[in-house]
Amino acid sequence: MSLLEQTIAAIQDADAAAMAEARTYQERLTKPPGSLGVLEELAVRLAGITGQVDLPLPHKVIVVAAGDHGVVEEGVSAFPQEVTMQMMANFVQGGAAINVLARHIGARVVVADFGVCRDLEMEGIRDLKIRRGTANIARGPAMSREEAAAAVEAGIKLVQEEIEQGLSVLGTGDMGIGNTTPSAAILSAFSGLSPSVCIGRGTGVDDAGLRRKAKAVADAVVVNRPDPRDALAVLAAVGGLEIAGLAGCILGAAAARKPVVIDGFISGAAALTAARLQPRAAQYMIASHLSAEAGHRFMLDQLGLEPVLRMNLRLGEGTGAALAMGILDAAAKIVREMATFESAGVSGAL
Amino acid sequence: MSLLEQTIAAIQDADAAAMAEARTYQERLTKPPGSLGVLEELAVRLAGITGQVDLPLPHKVIVVAAGDHGVVEEGVSAFPQEVTMQMMANFVQGGAAINVLARHIGARVVVADFGVCRDLEMEGIRDLKIRRGTANIARGPAMSREEAAAAVEAGIKLVQEEIEQGLSVLGTGDMGIGNTTPSAAILSAFSGLSPSVCIGRGTGVDDAGLRRKAKAVADAVVVNRPDPRDALAVLAAVGGLEIAGLAGCILGAAAARKPVVIDGFISGAAALTAARLQPRAAQYMIASHLSAEAGHRFMLDQLGLEPVLRMNLRLGEGTGAALAMGILDAAAKIVREMATFESAGVSGAL
Repeated sequence: MSLLEQTIAAIQDADAAAMAEARTYQERLTKPPGSLGVLEELAVRLAGITGQVDLPLPHKVIVVAAGDHGVVEEGVSAFPQEVTMQMMANFVQGGAAINVLARHIGARVVVADFGVCRDLEMEGIRDLKIRRGTANIARGPAMSREEAAAAVEAGIKLVQEEIEQGLSVLGTGDMGIGNTTPSAAILSAFSGLSPSVCIGRGTGVDDAGLRRKAKAVADAVVVNRPDPRDALAVLAAVGGLEIAGLAGCILGAAAARKPVVIDGFISGAAALTAARLQPRAAQYMIASHLSAEAGHRFMLDQLGLEPVLRMNLRLGEGTGAALAMGILDAAAKIVREMATFESAGVSGAL
Repeated sequence: MSLLEQTIAAIQDADAAAMAEARTYQERLTKPPGSLGVLEELAVRLAGITGQVDLPLPHKVIVVAAGDHGVVEEGVSAFPQEVTMQMMANFVQGGAAINVLARHIGARVVVADFGVCRDLEMEGIRDLKIRRGTANIARGPAMSREEAAAAVEAGIKLVQEEIEQGLSVLGTGDMGIGNTTPSAAILSAFSGLSPSVCIGRGTGVDDAGLRRKAKAVADAVVVNRPDPRDALAVLAAVGGLEIAGLAGCILGAAAARKPVVIDGFISGAAALTAARLQPRAAQYMIASHLSAEAGHRFMLDQLGLEPVLRMNLRLGEGTGAALAMGILDAAAKIVREMATFESAGVSGAL
C-alpha cells in the first residue's frame, strides 16, 4: 500500500467509551450541568479523539501550507501572485497575523512550501515543493493525479515528523494568492452546489472580480468534470498544492489520533477532501470558526461541523485555528484543573 | 456630589480621533483590509476607550461579585442558597471554572462579598457586604435606595483601588444563587419586555421552576413598580447586591477610561443599570459572549452591544469574560506586533 492508502486505513472511529466517561466527568465539576456549553463539547470531543479524558495540549503546531495558483490568470484575486512569496518571508520573520496569534496561544508555526512558483531561499521554510504552482483550473487540470498524491503524502510525512517531536494538537493554515478559487471549485465539485454560492470575495475582489471568479469556478468544474466519488481526482483537477498538503496533514493527524483544528475556507477545502478520502477523518476535526467568506458555511455543512468561533475572520494563514486552539486549551484545562462537587464540598442541585 | 454622582459625571465619550487613527493603522498591517473581522473592531474600540492606538493589556482583573437573594424563597433556583458561600470558598481555593479560565488568560480574580447571607471567615475575600442578602423582590423591594447606592459606590471604590494598582482591563463576574431572577426583573423593568421573555433556566430549573421564576419576575415588577427612568430605583426595587456592586465596578472603570469586559446575563443586568445611570458607560463595555440564558439577547439589544463569543455558556462567575479577555489580548497584540506592508516589503492590493 502507498503511504496515503496506509494512512487512510489507519484512521479509526473516535473512542465512544472515552467520550461517555468525559461526559460523566463534566457532571462532577463544580458548575451546573452543561453550563460551559461549547467548552464541555470540546472536552468530550478531545476525549473521543485521543482516548484520554484528562488531556494536556502542551505542544501546539500550526502548519501554514503555501502554494501558487495558475487560475490567477483569470483575474480572481485582489493581490498579485508575488504576495505568496512575500508573505512567506513575513511568516519566517514573525510579522504576520499568524505569528502574532500563534505566539499568543503558545503554538509553533511551521511554514511549508508545497508549490510556490518562485524558489524561496530562506531559512525556516520546509521545502516540500511538488511543482511550481498549479496550472489554470479554468482551462484544465490543476495538476496530475500523481502530483496530488505526492502533495498529500508530503503533508502526511510532515505531520508524522511533528508527532515524533511531540505534537499534541495540530492547526491548519494556508497561504496562496488565488486559493479561494480552487477551494470554491472543490466545494462545488464535491457538493454539487452552484459555483455562485461557493465563492466569496476572498482577499477583497470587487464586483467584476467576483464575476470573474464565479466564471473561473464554473469553468473549472465544467472543463475538468471530476468524479466527486474520486476525491483524489477532484483534488488533482480543481485543487491546489497547499490544499493537497493540508489534506495530508489532516489525515496524518487523524491516523495518529491527534485533534486537528481546521482554519477557514481553504483549510476547509482540504478538510473536505480529507473527509471524502476517509469519512472517519471528520471525527478528528475541530472547525475553528465560521469565516466571512461566503461559501464557508456550505463547507462546514458538508463536513457536518459546528464552528467554535464566529468572528468574521477571512484572512486564512491559520489565524482562526490559532484563536480556537486557545479555546481548546481552555476546555482541556477545565477538565484537568476544576474542583469536583465532592472535592470542594459544594452542594449539588436540589 | 456623592462618589456615584462624581463618577457618572466623569464618564466621557470614547475618543473618536483615536478610533479613526486605529482604523487607518489596521489598513497598513499585512492582511487584506477588514480580514481580521472582530479583532479589528475590538482594536478600534480599545483605542476609543483608552485614547491609545497601541495598547498593552498586561494587568487583567476579574471581579467576581457575590450576593444572596431573598427571592430564592419562591423556588426559582435549582441549587440551595448555601452554594453561594460554598462557591466563594471554591474561588478562594482556585478550583472553580473562573479560576481555571482566569489563569489561562493571565488574569487575577478578585472575590468580593457585596451581600452574602452568611459571614465568610476566609482569607482572600474582599468584605464589601452591605446587608445579608436582599429581601424577596416578589413581595417588596430588594433593598433601600441608600443600600443600592452604597453597593454601587463600594464597587466604584474597589475598581478605583485596582486601577491604582495598575489594572488595564476589567472583567466582571458574579456568584449568587437565584440571581438570574433579579437580573430578569431588571431587564423587564428597564425594557418593558414581558417577564416571560426575560427569563431562562438559570442553573437549570425544570419547567415548574421556570413557571415559578416567570411569576416571581412578574410579581417583582408589579409589586414594586419601579420607574424605569430612575435607574437607582430599579436597582433597589428588583436588583441584587452583587449586581449593584458590579454596576459600580463598570462605572468606575468607564470613568477611568478602562475597558470592561461584561460576562453574561447577571453582569449584563449590572451593565444595563450602569448604562441607564450614564448612557456613555456603554462605550466602555465589551460584551464577552451571548449566553445560553434565554433573556440575554434582549439584554444585549438593550445595551446595543454585539457579543464577541457565542459558545452557549451559562455559568457566570466571569467565565465568558475571561475567554473574551483572551480574544481582546489577541486584538491588542495584532496592533502591537504585526508588520506593515512597508516594513515587510509586501505588495498591496492590485
